[in-house]
Amino acid sequence: MTEQIRILIASKGKPEALAQGFRQEFPQAEILTDPAALDGTPVPYVVAGKPDPGTIAAVPGLELVLSLNAGIEHLLAPGEVPEGVPIVRLVDPAMTEGMSDWCLAVVLSWHRNLPLYRADTEWTRRTEVLSRDRVVTVLGAGALGSRVARLLAAIGFDTRVWSRTGRAVEGARAFAGPEGLVEATTGADAVVNLLPLTDATRDVLDAALFARMNRGGLVASAGRGQHLVDADLIAALDSGQIGAAALDVFRTEPLPPEDPLWTHPGILVTPHVAAPTQPGSAVRIMAENIRRHMNGDPITEIADPARGY
Amino acid sequence: MTEQIRILIASKGKPEALAQGFRQEFPQAEILTDPAALDGTPVPYVVAGKPDPGTIAAVPGLELVLSLNAGIEHLLAPGEVPEGVPIVRLVDPAMTEGMSDWCLAVVLSWHRNLPLYRADTEWTRRTEVLSRDRVVTVLGAGALGSRVARLLAAIGFDTRVWSRTGRAVEGARAFAGPEGLVEATTGADAVVNLLPLTDATRDVLDAALFARMNRGGLVASAGRGQHLVDADLIAALDSGQIGAAALDVFRTEPLPPEDPLWTHPGILVTPHVAAPTQPGSAVRIMAENIRRHMNGDPITEIADPARGY
Ligand SMILES: NC(=O)c1ccc[n+]([C@@H]2O[C@H](COP(=O)([O-])OP(=O)(O)OC[C@H]3O[C@@H](n4cnc5c(N)ncnc54)[C@H](OP(=O)(O)O)[C@@H]3O)[C@@H](O)[C@H]2O)c1
Ligand SMILES: NC(=O)c1ccc[n+]([C@@H]2O[C@H](COP(=O)([O-])OP(=O)(O)OC[C@H]3O[C@@H](n4cnc5c(N)ncnc54)[C@H](OP(=O)(O)O)[C@@H]3O)[C@@H](O)[C@H]2O)c1
Repeated sequence: MTEQIRILIASKGKPEALAQGFRQEFPQAEILTDPAALDGTPVPYVVAGKPDPGTIAAVPGLELVLSLNAGIEHLLAPGEVPEGVPIVRLVDPAMTEGMSDWCLAVVLSWHRNLPLYRADTEWTRRTEVLSRDRVVTVLGAGALGSRVARLLAAIGFDTRVWSRTGRAVEGARAFAGPEGLVEATTGADAVVNLLPLTDATRDVLDAALFARMNRGGLVASAGRGQHLVDADLIAALDSGQIGAAALDVFRTEPLPPEDPLWTHPGILVTPHVAAPTQPGSAVRIMAENIRRHMNGDPITEIADPARGY
Repeated sequence: MTEQIRILIASKGKPEALAQGFRQEFPQAEILTDPAALDGTPVPYVVAGKPDPGTIAAVPGLELVLSLNAGIEHLLAPGEVPEGVPIVRLVDPAMTEGMSDWCLAVVLSWHRNLPLYRADTEWTRRTEVLSRDRVVTVLGAGALGSRVARLLAAIGFDTRVWSRTGRAVEGARAFAGPEGLVEATTGADAVVNLLPLTDATRDVLDAALFARMNRGGLVASAGRGQHLVDADLIAALDSGQIGAAALDVFRTEPLPPEDPLWTHPGILVTPHVAAPTQPGSAVRIMAENIRRHMNGDPITEIADPARGY
């Protein structure tokens, strides 16, 4: 850990706070925060938020990219990270916990009619459904989806979980691949999207999926905005086929003030806060991955450009 | 099961639906639903909702009272059930699940600021706290409280649970007795009340308890209305010491239209729907307890008049 290393923090967020963290992890390292100030000296490590296009490709001597986010579709885009340079996704138990909190909050609040009761000013008892009598389908069984599905099942929901390979989750029924999606969403009362954005998952939340769900259910999405066909959701809400939606991610962020999603009564908008990166733990995890790379140890969370996540 | 038995259903709710269920369980039995129609023939079993005062005491040959509710304070009141006649509380996994759904819904919805986001019409990111950084204290570690505390801990909350005897709950820190209450609520961010109503628990949610909690926290109560000092809660909300409340139970039910709890912006009122009795499963459980009594087998959920629950 005493050799001189060089790390560029390519983030428009708060690079200084991260730089401080990395200086503590690697006191001997040179920590850079301004991509424009690079001379030709090799910089093997880039910590990447969402920098300007082409920023990472211009870094000399790049060996490893450490994403500040769980989703890395922007880093896999053409011209961003040179071919052969591994990209490490951020998988942080603190973020995973934040995501499960958000998903459980929106599912349970819908399940128990809290927005309706909040609006009431008189004693109106609604028929309460038990969680065992609600089918909840989680799309994605990765770091995030698997915890959410496991906790939904522990709470009592009739839980299904869909992934590419049919990954098993305790207490839930697992479905795989394109036909699995049809099975997993047919008769679902709620669908919770935690997929990565790839060519295969874009627009997955569309009219066809909504039509397979039980009438009046919930659509919750904290994957990416491009997973949702906004117009299909609004039409399904207006027809009553979908009862409510909770959205944390949008095609354009911040969601523009004039966007109809803001004011639709059936839609809860949260401003991409489901699972924010936690700088403290994120730095520790990225530093550990840098050490593994320096020591030649394997790193688990390497993205696969071929599958797109 | 072929001997002639007699069961009175003393409930103002829907006695006929229950009677149907008992007829299926005990085809040979005489099932009565009108307490006024009793002649002198012994009726060993009474299924008790909240009948008019004195109804149960007037039943000849009474051997066992089966409560339609988990809370039995009204049956322990003087003049209700003759001394020596055991009262069986209703403990039903379906009700327990309903209660944990309600408690988790109100805690998570508060924890993740859903009511605030729902009111927003622009992109305002709040600092989200992780569940591990919130202390949630559950009052009561019985059939209901123990499941709620276990699930809160599984979700990630720093969970405490308080009971008379300090009953252990997986993942939570247990506290016992009057001094334990002070420890358990000091520095709590949320308090969830699932106590039975007894002389020792009446008015437990008072100014002193609120003052020990962290500023801006949540008070959730689904025990009984008499646990809460309403005026203390409103004062604590108005001062900001308490941030929000979710109440399912009230001193007077239905909560009168003019009650200030309805309109206080910090308070969510739900109309005693947290864990409604599920007639189907309730009948099966009560029938099983009647069979145990007939066979001389032990029944677990007998209330203890001395301790009051
Ligand atoms: N809103 C927020 O605050 C926030 C925060 C963090 C992350 N996110 C989003 O959440 C996403 C998921 O994160 P993660 O860490 O859980 O990712 P992950 O560990 O890579 O898991 C991805 C899951 O999606 C499945 N999947 C991928 N492509 C699929 C396809 N075509 N069909 C079916 N299943 C497919 C994978 O299947 P296999 O298991 O078979 O590989 C895997 O189960 C991120 O990519 C990001 O977009 C949002
Ligand atoms: N809102 C609704 O829809 C609804 C539905 C059902 C029930 N309820 C309410 O929920 C209550 C609890 O039900 P349950 O089935 O969980 O009851 P339970 O199994 O009898 O459990 C009661 C718990 O409270 C504790 N306790 C009692 N007196 C105490 C005291 N003085 N100090 C500290 N702890 C005390 C007991 O301690 P020990 O473990 O040490 O004995 C026990 O853990 C019911 O009585 C009813 O009022 C409400």
